Amino acid sequence: MDVETKVVVDTLWVIIAACLVFFMNAGFAMLETGLCQAKNAVNILAKNFIVFAISSIAFWVVGFGLMFGDGNGFVGMSGLLLRGPDNSPAMGDAYSGVFSALGWTGVPLEAKFFFQLVFAGTAATIVSGAVAERIKFTSFIVFSFILVAVIYPIGGHWAWGGGWLATLSTPFADFAGSTVVHSVGGWAALMGAIILGPRIGKYGTGGAIRPIPGHNMSLATLGALILWLGWFGFNPGSTMAADVALISKVALNTNLAAAAGCLLATAVSWLILKRPDLSMILNGTLAGLVAITAPCNAVGLTSSFFIGAIAGVLVVFAVLFFDRTVKVDDPVGALSVHLVNGVWGTLSVGLFASEGGLFFGGGFAKTLSQLIGIVAICALTVAGSSLVWFLLKVTLGIRVGAEEELEGLDTGEHGMQAYPGFTAPMTPEPKAMEIS
Amino acid sequence: MDVETKVVVDTLWVIIAACLVFFMNAGFAMLETGLCQAKNAVNILAKNFIVFAISSIAFWVVGFGLMFGDGNGFVGMSGLLLRGPDNSPAMGDAYSGVFSALGWTGVPLEAKFFFQLVFAGTAATIVSGAVAERIKFTSFIVFSFILVAVIYPIGGHWAWGGGWLATLSTPFADFAGSTVVHSVGGWAALMGAIILGPRIGKYGTGGAIRPIPGHNMSLATLGALILWLGWFGFNPGSTMAADVALISKVALNTNLAAAAGCLLATAVSWLILKRPDLSMILNGTLAGLVAITAPCNAVGLTSSFFIGAIAGVLVVFAVLFFDRTVKVDDPVGALSVHLVNGVWGTLSVGLFASEGGLFFGGGFAKTLSQLIGIVAICALTVAGSSLVWFLLKVTLGIRVGAEEELEGLDTGEHGMQAYPGFTAPMTPEPKAMEIS
Amino acid sequence: MDVETKVVVDTLWVIIAACLVFFMNAGFAMLETGLCQAKNAVNILAKNFIVFAISSIAFWVVGFGLMFGDGNGFVGMSGLLLRGPDNSPAMGDAYSGVFSALGWTGVPLEAKFFFQLVFAGTAATIVSGAVAERIKFTSFIVFSFILVAVIYPIGGHWAWGGGWLATLSTPFADFAGSTVVHSVGGWAALMGAIILGPRIGKYGTGGAIRPIPGHNMSLATLGALILWLGWFGFNPGSTMAADVALISKVALNTNLAAAAGCLLATAVSWLILKRPDLSMILNGTLAGLVAITAPCNAVGLTSSFFIGAIAGVLVVFAVLFFDRTVKVDDPVGALSVHLVNGVWGTLSVGLFASEGGLFFGGGFAKTLSQLIGIVAICALTVAGSSLVWFLLKVTLGIRVGAEEELEGLDTGEHGMQAYPGFTAPMTPEPKAMEIS
Repeated sequence: MDVETKVVVDTLWVIIAACLVFFMNAGFAMLETGLCQAKNAVNILAKNFIVFAISSIAFWVVGFGLMFGDGNGFVGMSGLLLRGPDNSPAMGDAYSGVFSALGWTGVPLEAKFFFQLVFAGTAATIVSGAVAERIKFTSFIVFSFILVAVIYPIGGHWAWGGGWLATLSTPFADFAGSTVVHSVGGWAALMGAIILGPRIGKYGTGGAIRPIPGHNMSLATLGALILWLGWFGFNPGSTMAADVALISKVALNTNLAAAAGCLLATAVSWLILKRPDLSMILNGTLAGLVAITAPCNAVGLTSSFFIGAIAGVLVVFAVLFFDRTVKVDDPVGALSVHLVNGVWGTLSVGLFASEGGLFFGGGFAKTLSQLIGIVAICALTVAGSSLVWFLLKVTLGIRVGAEEELEGLDTGEHGMQAYPGFTAPMTPEPKAMEIS
Repeated sequence: MDVETKVVVDTLWVIIAACLVFFMNAGFAMLETGLCQAKNAVNILAKNFIVFAISSIAFWVVGFGLMFGDGNGFVGMSGLLLRGPDNSPAMGDAYSGVFSALGWTGVPLEAKFFFQLVFAGTAATIVSGAVAERIKFTSFIVFSFILVAVIYPIGGHWAWGGGWLATLSTPFADFAGSTVVHSVGGWAALMGAIILGPRIGKYGTGGAIRPIPGHNMSLATLGALILWLGWFGFNPGSTMAADVALISKVALNTNLAAAAGCLLATAVSWLILKRPDLSMILNGTLAGLVAITAPCNAVGLTSSFFIGAIAGVLVVFAVLFFDRTVKVDDPVGALSVHLVNGVWGTLSVGLFASEGGLFFGGGFAKTLSQLIGIVAICALTVAGSSLVWFLLKVTLGIRVGAEEELEGLDTGEHGMQAYPGFTAPMTPEPKAMEIS
Repeated sequence: MDVETKVVVDTLWVIIAACLVFFMNAGFAMLETGLCQAKNAVNILAKNFIVFAISSIAFWVVGFGLMFGDGNGFVGMSGLLLRGPDNSPAMGDAYSGVFSALGWTGVPLEAKFFFQLVFAGTAATIVSGAVAERIKFTSFIVFSFILVAVIYPIGGHWAWGGGWLATLSTPFADFAGSTVVHSVGGWAALMGAIILGPRIGKYGTGGAIRPIPGHNMSLATLGALILWLGWFGFNPGSTMAADVALISKVALNTNLAAAAGCLLATAVSWLILKRPDLSMILNGTLAGLVAITAPCNAVGLTSSFFIGAIAGVLVVFAVLFFDRTVKVDDPVGALSVHLVNGVWGTLSVGLFASEGGLFFGGGFAKTLSQLIGIVAICALTVAGSSLVWFLLKVTLGIRVGAEEELEGLDTGEHGMQAYPGFTAPMTPEPKAMEIS
């Protein structure tokens, strides 16, 4: 295949995969809205919709340059506003420009940017779920801008932009972003959820824990199916080339891990909660998808099944852990899905990789690099996002007033209702569930 | 075009088409949920979601090997767990491996599997609609596993896996699966609906027939539109190669049959029911799509229009026939869409094929082969699924208790509600409709 | 790249882009349904669903021939039913057939038709929103048929079918259809909304203006996200070739304009209406998308940002203008999005084009051609659609009876409800909003 043809098929694939990942915005919007209360639906929809517009501007003006622009091992320092020399789609040694870290993929610069943008947008969207039903709209917008403009790109630079994690003797390996995207979103979400505190009524006196059920499981299920679809762009698209043998393998690994996560989460929730809980079925699948995101290019089919299966078990216990043990209020389970399984998936590369994985005779070197990457990006994201959340708290404020929270953010923040004329609960369900 | 390039474009097309077909899971989920009652929505969503996870495992472990693995004219007997020699994407005489029946398509083995998997998942999903609102969750899961692991693959082997239907002197022709996928799902659904019996309250004393309207026509319509979209992967993707002349023709035939089915079902329901019934508009379109699935590669534009138009007429009368004449309770019309029009579409190849069709001077040979295939796969599926339904009935039980059915399966099977706080009917509409 | 390969990649891209545009039908259906009242949901869904079936037949039988068939500068006069000589995918000088105006793109005729069909369907769908909640179902069907069979194709012939606008000394430039598709739909919608008059209760005595809120913002938001996705087929697909440098640039321009439209509409609605109104957030994004549709191939990134930003400002004031100043009742804001920004986007080519644009030293010639095109296609569409609306008014009638309108079109036109058993408002909200 001549270079011209290669550029054409590579670019078509990258653009189409980017469209699938873009569509994940609809998936996250429907999932989060469905799993939250009707009185906050407009606010959640508005957050999930505007966040991609915010991300688009933030990543164009600043983020892409910090992440992929030439710079040092810590941060990129060129290519703001997508400007600077660049002879893409020239690649390899023929590449000459300020985005050397992406010189390996032979597609036009706009295609590189578009594909990376939809990933950046995903990280920001993940935060939305964990801080839902109590965060101020303005503060969410500002946080999202800074996350996509600065925090996400710096971590991304370390791993994907030619930074220090990519140049370890055994490089940190995160093919499609279990850490770079999902756990970054997860750590930022965790700090937000902690600093915000739980929703009013979630935790009563004497250890009472009130479940606050989502208002529309049809939308939540639709959202999860859209996300499953979008992952066929997320993981196989991370080839950023029409490397069809790898694309096919990655697609199948991705699906097998999703299926395993789904079934194991169903089984575990059936055993522990005594019923096949639909939100666990959905989150188990997403957990499998998050987990396979890092290792999808490096492991075999059977390993993918086990990575997804373990994710499906982990997510159920993680939900119970956050909800009952440490009492961090995460309305949609974003921490259990994206943070816990982002970490697990990244670690699993060290364990299951066909070449160099611990279970395949490769020793500890790979696992060690993975742990270094997990810890480093955790530290960066926790520090950066805590600082931003704190600054927002003391300036704009990050939490709506108690009266507004009880009445619903839709009225307070947006002056409208999602379903006018339909009956919907305006306060948390009254019946408390005591946990032994 | 060199072989390397051909493999790349063929594989990209197969993967993208598979993604479109995968998305049909969301279409079926929304269509079935919308057309059923709110009190069973969680159950229906859970069924439609988990069924693809079940299918993924069943087809990986067993089904694909039985369907496409080398064996005899009746069943494949190699390639379980996708294992065994295979030098894909080598094709034609260059192919060497245990999946000879797919040696004609030059894409990686994982791509072949992924594409065939989404088809297998479709067959299982079809069953869900006809048995909705009364089947036990566990029994549905077990049935789906066996359908995708054993029954579907055997029928598929006969037609697509080099089995006896493919080696008739005039081979049985079912390009994208009117019979192999849709009527297999339909026959299995029919046996399930018969063995389960109708929902409580559906048929009263003295011949009264109660309509039980769906709870959300917005979701149902969204589902039908997603299915229409997905069919542009289902039919044109069945080329399993970037044969763009054929892809273009098939896409247009598919759309024209859908449009004709839509308009004719609308017209007929307007004449008979005195109103343009939205569920008929949706099901008419799906009927046209199911019907054109077998002949889409073999007929011209005008023939496609007529095949779809006839499907649109058939579906209305079929709904009335099942609902009023034989009183088989099918909440979503799955039998009328997938079974009746799966049969019709398969037969239409014999009548309308540009080469060899009865109406184009080809005599009866082609039609006869089609009838043989329809009857053979009917016999297989009816026998196999009846046996499985019966065994499930006497072991796990297949129907929820009357009290649970009246209260809704969401409470009984899943301990949750789809729309907590919204008002929704918990029993069938009280007003009966007497049929003269 | 050899010709055979080029045909393959071009066609794959055109088919995939067409699928994305097809999916916009689901976007329009969900957006319009969500922004209207529950009592009319079935009617709106039925309109939005059947309109693509109608369009498919109308464009096949007549429209495509009038638009792209060889003829004169005013109208095409060959190729009805897609018949007549055509040696596609031969292109350029090698092309020989009756669709010379599409001889520049080297894909099979069926692919050309399919791609153009989904555009024609979009124009018809736009009308639906502005005439919602009061138009007779039959009259909408007949109007849509004539729009797609005759009016849209004639305008399209002028600009895209080798007609007089394409042969001006400085040709009228509308890359993906800000005018050809969106403002044609918008003008037809405007005449419909005027001739129909406002919904009962929308405008009270003494200048009172009653807001009639949509019944489901979740569906509306989902619809807008699907439309945003679909636009990545609409604009980049209008290359009708795998010209990947242009595709990448167009995709990024499209997204940047959408993001800018979203953010500016949010900001302006926050300033003017004192709250970030979700429907404005959605419509601002769509306004940016409509505006960038004409210039997306001809402008740079920064220009795209400004074109979208201006669209986001325009749409808010346009909504207020139609709603309060001229009192044209447009339930979903279709006029503000598609008409106003269709015109703005077309004009912006003259101002912002990198080559020949007024702001880039190109003088007035380009802007003048754009104005000629805008006015000409306005005149054609206003005259044609007014005539059709008028003839429908005096024959079939175009407006449902007052009693039916108050009770809801779902009962009157379709004899069913979208959400039986759920509580929903059956009349406009009682509280009036006095505008100073």
